[in-house]
Amino acid sequence: MSTTVSPLAPKSYPDMPDIEGVTFATVEAGIKYSGRTDVLLASLVEGTAVAGVFTKSKCSSAPVDWCKEILSNGQARALLVNSGNANAFTGKKGAAAVELSADIVSKAVGCPRHSIYLASTGVIGEPLPAEKFEGVADGLVAAQGQASWLDAAQAIMTTDTYPKLATATVDLDGETVSINGIAKGAGMIAPDMATMLSFVFTDAAIAPGVLQAMLGQNTETSFNAITVDSDTSTSDTVLFFATGAAEKRGVAAIAEVDDPRAEVIRAVLADVMTDLAHQIVRDGEGARKFVEIAVEGAETDQSAKQVALSIANSPLVKTAVAGEDANWGRVVMAVGKAGEPADRDRLAIWFGDVRVAVGGERDPSYSEEAASAVMKEENIPIRVDLGLGTGEAVVWTCDLTKQYVEINGDYRS
Amino acid sequence: MSTTVSPLAPKSYPDMPDIEGVTFATVEAGIKYSGRTDVLLASLVEGTAVAGVFTKSKCSSAPVDWCKEILSNGQARALLVNSGNANAFTGKKGAAAVELSADIVSKAVGCPRHSIYLASTGVIGEPLPAEKFEGVADGLVAAQGQASWLDAAQAIMTTDTYPKLATATVDLDGETVSINGIAKGAGMIAPDMATMLSFVFTDAAIAPGVLQAMLGQNTETSFNAITVDSDTSTSDTVLFFATGAAEKRGVAAIAEVDDPRAEVIRAVLADVMTDLAHQIVRDGEGARKFVEIAVEGAETDQSAKQVALSIANSPLVKTAVAGEDANWGRVVMAVGKAGEPADRDRLAIWFGDVRVAVGGERDPSYSEEAASAVMKEENIPIRVDLGLGTGEAVVWTCDLTKQYVEINGDYRS
Repeated sequence: MSTTVSPLAPKSYPDMPDIEGVTFATVEAGIKYSGRTDVLLASLVEGTAVAGVFTKSKCSSAPVDWCKEILSNGQARALLVNSGNANAFTGKKGAAAVELSADIVSKAVGCPRHSIYLASTGVIGEPLPAEKFEGVADGLVAAQGQASWLDAAQAIMTTDTYPKLATATVDLDGETVSINGIAKGAGMIAPDMATMLSFVFTDAAIAPGVLQAMLGQNTETSFNAITVDSDTSTSDTVLFFATGAAEKRGVAAIAEVDDPRAEVIRAVLADVMTDLAHQIVRDGEGARKFVEIAVEGAETDQSAKQVALSIANSPLVKTAVAGEDANWGRVVMAVGKAGEPADRDRLAIWFGDVRVAVGGERDPSYSEEAASAVMKEENIPIRVDLGLGTGEAVVWTCDLTKQYVEINGDYRS
Repeated sequence: MSTTVSPLAPKSYPDMPDIEGVTFATVEAGIKYSGRTDVLLASLVEGTAVAGVFTKSKCSSAPVDWCKEILSNGQARALLVNSGNANAFTGKKGAAAVELSADIVSKAVGCPRHSIYLASTGVIGEPLPAEKFEGVADGLVAAQGQASWLDAAQAIMTTDTYPKLATATVDLDGETVSINGIAKGAGMIAPDMATMLSFVFTDAAIAPGVLQAMLGQNTETSFNAITVDSDTSTSDTVLFFATGAAEKRGVAAIAEVDDPRAEVIRAVLADVMTDLAHQIVRDGEGARKFVEIAVEGAETDQSAKQVALSIANSPLVKTAVAGEDANWGRVVMAVGKAGEPADRDRLAIWFGDVRVAVGGERDPSYSEEAASAVMKEENIPIRVDLGLGTGEAVVWTCDLTKQYVEINGDYRS
């Protein structure tokens, strides 16, 4: 938790409605940090369905392995999250720490171990002192409901400079159902998802398979469409919980993917997930600019995304943005190195509304002044038309500043 | 050309022997820079064979397109190089500038256009004022031999802080033949080769096909095994010229790839190319540390190289090196994200001779003090054993410092 908040932080936190069936408690367990909360326990009502997406890292953390293993049960009763230690690359000790954590929580909550979800972020390679959960578990259960959504979002922060929350509501069967999400992440952020945790909750009743389909589809255009530094973490976890409490109010359960209400929920969920994803980029380590990169005219959407990520991950593009330099030649370079179909002579590039290049060369009416004016803004839209087909994609990133180097040059000390 | 020389620069320049059949002249043409030489003309004796490797960028520069087109002729009489303007993404104007340059040089030298090699580096997207060559071409021809190897290496520099030269000799048929090379490059350096130019010359007589085979094989383990910032340029060019002058001294021409002397030359050429490649990394923008990343135990050599590059290109690994932080967890992360076969629990990692991780967790005898001592050195060897097979690869990179951001945040201004 930094004392200096990112200049790109949202100006206020959203009002988060209650979601029946979810409560929170947080505590200072002293896992690594002192003087701040570092453990979150979310309690979930019986019958809560769950879906998850995880890092594709070959060196995934012990909690990720645990969650993947229990996900097929489809039911969740609790979520335990700690910050400060990722319990990643901790070998047998890591697996044992996860087992111990699940034991402690399942006893305290009174539910099967396979309905306890676990997430940890922080330093890699240091054994997690899971025995510390022993001393705080009963207290966390007793204190359920005392922590707000903001408290929950704060307890899971590591190098974040602000807590990340988003909410949306939707009418279903004449009733209002809510989707609330929290997230953490600031560095080691890239597809697929980097050191990023996000937990999203709804009171709608949705079957696990439907939940999983929604989550998977939306991840591609939200959490898997952001990059801070191209580094993908061992711990990335997005979980989506549906408590089903709205069923009592007459909102029938969504049991099938082709229920038309599933698409209604999915679209709203997409808004919440994209909002959270943007907040992560806006808290990118050292970020001073928020950059949207839209690629169109590619042979396929997938190809467009690869080109967009090549631009978004280019240190030279990112330092040019930091320097407010309309150096569009570096965008050309990043398109060229992407390894995707591209034809130099059909390429067009815009900074904001200013077309800077077209037909394989500098725009005939290029204005350095107009292009530079765009670069001075806080939000920088870069658009590339490859001129080949109808494939398109949008990704988001931030600039690369000296502060990024500073923050990451002495992270552990 | 910076006024502050990289702290990783070689302490002295090598003594470069003459290579019969090659002469140089340089001039201040004012393409972009003032007060320094920015054009090099190398004159090559009739009968000089040539081979080349080029950027794989889809947005290759006009000079790269030109060289690729004429390469099948296999013969070279002159090489014209300018610094300050890359003549890349310059559309029809770029192609016209290349035609004009070749015309001017072919008239001045008195040789066919298709034996004139061209290379340009510098800013992308600005039309190259090739007409400036008109005024200097005859002077460059008249001054042939007045510029040294050092002068030649200096004229092709852009953001380089020092000129790059390497040399080696080898006994062939009882006579000494030489291989001399010069290179430029400091940023936008990555496989495949980034804003990197290198020109290597020998007096041995070697057929173009043999020359090309040698160059291609060596490029993979030299210029294609370095990365400063993962950004690949539109202009990368490596040319290898064999003047054949040694034939007069009784060194028979090498006409076939399976001539045993070809392997002798290739091995020495590899030393020269690797030396130049290292010098480019040591001049990496803002570099304070030279990092060698060796990956072994991969399923294939290619897989080992991908893992090594994932580590070498990770901003978090590179900033940790800058901060002298033995943060081996970030190496684990970079292995995990590489997308190559890896088994967390078979992984071992060394910083220098200090094994920091083994069997999926921190080394039982891990010493932070010993690992930190390695990080304080100027040269940082990182070794990873994936424990899967016999594939191996070595790549080289530098650290990521605030100076990199500074240099690239205002490059054009």
